[in-house]
Amino acid sequence: MSDSTPRVRAPVSAAIDHGVSALRFDGNALHLLDQRTLPHAENWLRCANASEVAQAITDMVVRGAPAIGIAAAYGMAMAASAGEDLARTANLLRASRPTAVNLHWALERMQALSAAPAARWVEQAHALHREDLAQNLAMAEAGAALLPEGTRVLTHCNTGALATGGHGTALGVIRSGWRSGRITSVHHTETRPWLQGARLTAWELQRDGIPATMIADSAAAQLMASGAIDWVIVGADRVAANGDTANKIGTLMLAQCARTSGVRFMVVAPSGTVDRDCPNGDAIPIESRAADELAGIGAQRMAPSGIAAWNPVFDVTPAALIDAFVCERGVCCPVNAETLAACLGD
Amino acid sequence: MSDSTPRVRAPVSAAIDHGVSALRFDGNALHLLDQRTLPHAENWLRCANASEVAQAITDMVVRGAPAIGIAAAYGMAMAASAGEDLARTANLLRASRPTAVNLHWALERMQALSAAPAARWVEQAHALHREDLAQNLAMAEAGAALLPEGTRVLTHCNTGALATGGHGTALGVIRSGWRSGRITSVHHTETRPWLQGARLTAWELQRDGIPATMIADSAAAQLMASGAIDWVIVGADRVAANGDTANKIGTLMLAQCARTSGVRFMVVAPSGTVDRDCPNGDAIPIESRAADELAGIGAQRMAPSGIAAWNPVFDVTPAALIDAFVCERGVCCPVNAETLAACLGD
Repeated sequence: MSDSTPRVRAPVSAAIDHGVSALRFDGNALHLLDQRTLPHAENWLRCANASEVAQAITDMVVRGAPAIGIAAAYGMAMAASAGEDLARTANLLRASRPTAVNLHWALERMQALSAAPAARWVEQAHALHREDLAQNLAMAEAGAALLPEGTRVLTHCNTGALATGGHGTALGVIRSGWRSGRITSVHHTETRPWLQGARLTAWELQRDGIPATMIADSAAAQLMASGAIDWVIVGADRVAANGDTANKIGTLMLAQCARTSGVRFMVVAPSGTVDRDCPNGDAIPIESRAADELAGIGAQRMAPSGIAAWNPVFDVTPAALIDAFVCERGVCCPVNAETLAACLGD
Repeated sequence: MSDSTPRVRAPVSAAIDHGVSALRFDGNALHLLDQRTLPHAENWLRCANASEVAQAITDMVVRGAPAIGIAAAYGMAMAASAGEDLARTANLLRASRPTAVNLHWALERMQALSAAPAARWVEQAHALHREDLAQNLAMAEAGAALLPEGTRVLTHCNTGALATGGHGTALGVIRSGWRSGRITSVHHTETRPWLQGARLTAWELQRDGIPATMIADSAAAQLMASGAIDWVIVGADRVAANGDTANKIGTLMLAQCARTSGVRFMVVAPSGTVDRDCPNGDAIPIESRAADELAGIGAQRMAPSGIAAWNPVFDVTPAALIDAFVCERGVCCPVNAETLAACLGD
């Protein structure tokens, strides 16, 4: 993996994700760590073309807004190498998951290469991958700097190395904050229905030797009311121009309960997550997935057959409930259209 | 089942729980519908003595505050028939689950029989069982009467026939409200970690032909923020003298998010659920169960081995977040020490 050399040098030395990686490109194919079977089996799925990458994104072999953006970039690079119709390929990849805007952003960055030779497309995908890791490390420092010593945090879903190009967004802040001693206690939700917290965040933190305690999603209100949490720290799949934030279902619940209990609330996401074409959260498309994902757990069916379920993957947290938005360009606090535009350098 | 005849007459004719029953006493043994394997298998567990009943309560073969109170009453009746030490038996049953006060209340009602003959103890257990059903039917009418036509409700956990002597508390209000046309839409949570919503409430509603939609617990905030819910209706395991209410973990989250979104919040529980010895929620003991209940689902382990988890079974919702408390004696609105005492006839 020749491209890994520069990544392993400067920024990666600061990462402490113990080499957890969601994806690697071998020059011919993209290999995805199958996140559906973690932590029980570490299976790698080989995607030999963009169509297979799109299917893997839809099937949630790879998930996490930054990680699917990077996977899509490698998909475009493979399409360029194969001489495929690149506009058609971009549309296919763009449709693989509807909510995360990083996917659109990564595809635009790739398509800007236009008629460049295929090798340039591959290099660009590597560059996006390295850039995401560097952004995560910058965000981790900026986010952790907001936390006083002794901070006790709660996070949701998985926003770590598995969801990104490495280190993580919200989990990157937690990694760095733990290492620097600012964070002294970590709780995470299990994150139904996909259990990204129970399966992925627990696994990443365990590999890093960061002690953590899992809770049922619905226990967060009681945990916060008990005074055990200072900050909730989450990632984002799309941030509207006014700061309204689409993130994993349950984020709005955490934000509302945090506000009720006087707990602060931080969103950590690279600037590519901000969609300036969305004026506010109402304009963000929210993916719904099949009822069956909720009626069963893995292969085990829990609910009776034939019941109806509402299974939105994301919800929208109003900017007013977010105390700090952290991206690689800086920190917004409070979060609104003006602070966000200023932070992004508009 | 000779004791069922009076139950089937007057009050039961008003029930529409299609004969779902958590328990039946055959004169010699208590048969419990094993709620751990529903809805996939309808297994009945035979408890031949009070010790087996206590173990079944601890193991959650039977659950739901009113149902475990009734099961304990039959346990005492069997102990009286067997000539056992009744004070010791009462202590054993009292310790089987710590939070639900109905258990204490039912045991006190039984122990008041003192030196009465064993047949009286059996009749008293039957009477408590019938009384619970009658109370549920009264609460269902009173609760449903609070709802205007076209009300859309969300409920949590299972508070139906399986959790009670029949019909249910919160689910009883929903059954009656649906039948009378006041309720036009029903959502329920899945209720992690035991999935009482996914496994039990979905099953009861399906048997009753009441269309319902399940959501992940953490999706409740988004559902309420979208304007799709008018009332949240839940049961209770113990209500303090000031109205603070211990109920299934996640209830506080629902109450906080309901208040944020302007959704009203109703607690439905028989007067035996009120613990006048608890001045407020801080005095209610909250049961925690093993981390393993959260790390896996049924027999399937989801999280990595060795992770820590905080698994409280209940949380406490402050009275100020409860718009109405409904018991068989009437309705409190607002809920506080004075209205509650007046409602209970103190």
